Amino acid sequence: MKKILVLGSTGSIGINTLEIARTFPDKLKIIGLSVNNNIDLLQKQISEFHPCAVAVRDKKSAAELKVRIGNSCEILIGDEGLLELTRCNNYDILLSALVGFAGLAPTIEAIKLKKRIALANKETLVTAGEIIIDLCKKYGAELIPVDSEHSAIFQSLIGENKNNIKKIILTASGGPFLNKNKSELENVTIKDALNHPNWKMGNKITIDSATMMNKGLEVIEAFWLFNLPKEKIEVLIHPQSVIHSMVEFCDGSIKAQLSLPDMKLPILFAISFPERYYFDTINTDFKKINQLTFFEPDFDKFECLKTAYKVIEEGGTAPCILNAANEIAVEKFLSGKIKFTQIPEIIDEALNGVAVKFNADLQTIIECDSATREYLNKKLN
Amino acid sequence: MKKILVLGSTGSIGINTLEIARTFPDKLKIIGLSVNNNIDLLQKQISEFHPCAVAVRDKKSAAELKVRIGNSCEILIGDEGLLELTRCNNYDILLSALVGFAGLAPTIEAIKLKKRIALANKETLVTAGEIIIDLCKKYGAELIPVDSEHSAIFQSLIGENKNNIKKIILTASGGPFLNKNKSELENVTIKDALNHPNWKMGNKITIDSATMMNKGLEVIEAFWLFNLPKEKIEVLIHPQSVIHSMVEFCDGSIKAQLSLPDMKLPILFAISFPERYYFDTINTDFKKINQLTFFEPDFDKFECLKTAYKVIEEGGTAPCILNAANEIAVEKFLSGKIKFTQIPEIIDEALNGVAVKFNADLQTIIECDSATREYLNKKLN
Repeated sequence: MKKILVLGSTGSIGINTLEIARTFPDKLKIIGLSVNNNIDLLQKQISEFHPCAVAVRDKKSAAELKVRIGNSCEILIGDEGLLELTRCNNYDILLSALVGFAGLAPTIEAIKLKKRIALANKETLVTAGEIIIDLCKKYGAELIPVDSEHSAIFQSLIGENKNNIKKIILTASGGPFLNKNKSELENVTIKDALNHPNWKMGNKITIDSATMMNKGLEVIEAFWLFNLPKEKIEVLIHPQSVIHSMVEFCDGSIKAQLSLPDMKLPILFAISFPERYYFDTINTDFKKINQLTFFEPDFDKFECLKTAYKVIEEGGTAPCILNAANEIAVEKFLSGKIKFTQIPEIIDEALNGVAVKFNADLQTIIECDSATREYLNKKLN
Repeated sequence: MKKILVLGSTGSIGINTLEIARTFPDKLKIIGLSVNNNIDLLQKQISEFHPCAVAVRDKKSAAELKVRIGNSCEILIGDEGLLELTRCNNYDILLSALVGFAGLAPTIEAIKLKKRIALANKETLVTAGEIIIDLCKKYGAELIPVDSEHSAIFQSLIGENKNNIKKIILTASGGPFLNKNKSELENVTIKDALNHPNWKMGNKITIDSATMMNKGLEVIEAFWLFNLPKEKIEVLIHPQSVIHSMVEFCDGSIKAQLSLPDMKLPILFAISFPERYYFDTINTDFKKINQLTFFEPDFDKFECLKTAYKVIEEGGTAPCILNAANEIAVEKFLSGKIKFTQIPEIIDEALNGVAVKFNADLQTIIECDSATREYLNKKLN
């Protein structure tokens, strides 16, 4: 039995992870769950999966859950409770599906316990890639990506020598605004931006797909995960999201991983690897898919993607500033306070206004994240 | 240095192999060459690559070559000369690119010497799959496919557990007659049939592509190479020949190998594996490729493909009969003696008229091949 701790169990990745656990009751056991404040769904998950403990970030929700379920399951509270949950040593795999910067600290706890990290939280590597990769090496923790793109690259590299990579090709659906021109982006609505053509995901990541910042974050993630210079990381628009990504080797041969888009596949792989479990849910029929198309990304229209390459070049805490600024900007867009096209502007403003630090330790990164948020909140309010 | 013996050095695969040897003079050494009768080209190859010995099947051509080059290189003659060449123990890799049934006997010699077999000759596995696979196991010889499709499957399986294969998907360009309907095939010319949209190959294999017998032979090859029931071998029309083939695993994940169509890639891979050499010739740009399409094969129009699945079912020497009949039929079509649509008819005639033998040894297979040829030559002349 593989014992799994799911952080962010009521989000899209968390729900898919529990569906997988439901499919393999003889192979997988849910040990713990964490949520922000959705205790209604958490309560159902507790009664189905009987975890040893759960963490609820919002204190009021935690108290309410305590009233509802009593002592049937240990309830840990707040950020400290989440860390305590990851510090308990009774699991094999940490499935980190928290949203945003909050994913960083608990992931580090699991790395120190030498756990397998099934990483769905992009911000962990974007903000603290160097620290995370170094810690994984130091403690011998396994880091397996859950993003469909990085999972595809990971799978394409199985049994291959990483020194033979010529480049990796991250595919991108292009999001809902692929066929809009730059000036049309001025007036898109929240509803337009949340209408992703292929993937059903949380709001933050769906907006990131619309700006293509999501792909930018993935470029930064790939930079750390696969230890490649940014020149070897290419983005290719592929609207059908069937080829999840590709690796081109030094001999000119390309390997790819494909399927109909469904997050259950990369989640299952991150759990089952190096095995593959028999899973009959996703049946990809190329005769029905009929065609796959490819285009060059428009870096002029999707400025966030261009900015992501720029912060890799800059190094230090620049990706951390980009990430914090993007979280703030997306929040403001989702609450109707700014226009869609202001998202890249706000990110640029932060990158120009907040000082980049080099050789940063975790504390410096946490401070840089806070400094960026403070800077923008002062500027924007 | 890897020492290579190239059988069929003046054919399309042979020429490409020598181009690769030319590219990697510090890694690859050509030890021997064999041809049918094209001594003009062979003479050039000898003066460039300085092999220890060459085999010339046609006796008159061998004598003529002897006059031209004297004792500068040992010349072996006829079928026996070819076997003698493969029996010399001074090479690491046998690149078998002979056309047709003639490829079988020399391959067996190389297997007995525990050499790596880079197999471009389809008929070896089609006619004697069971014997070849058993001999490879017995002698510990490596069999690496050079067909782009089987190379793609082989590459997709690197580091994977073969028990996890759900199915393999052999892609097929569909050949020059993909968009003709069945009745239009009645009157196609030799020139039409030789006009392959993607691949520049020898005449025999180009006609096999037009009838889709080529794909049928590949299905039989895959049956032996990957030890899969025919139900797990699917054919998918993919006119651009960029996805060279795919493997679907038990979890629903699919892996594929891709590139612009160029035989140099699978040849290089069969030589360099498990390494990959830096080779800058084939640069696949998906932004230029723009789209990949997929269709179900029309088994009614391409009867040869249907027949290939049927002979796997039948077993024994049925694939050997199919192969011999196809060689005869293609020969007759290329010499203008029959219509294109008579090719599958002739194959059916042989399969109905020649007795299938089971548990066949090599002698039985050779006799079955001869019996089929005699039967058809009697019937057709």
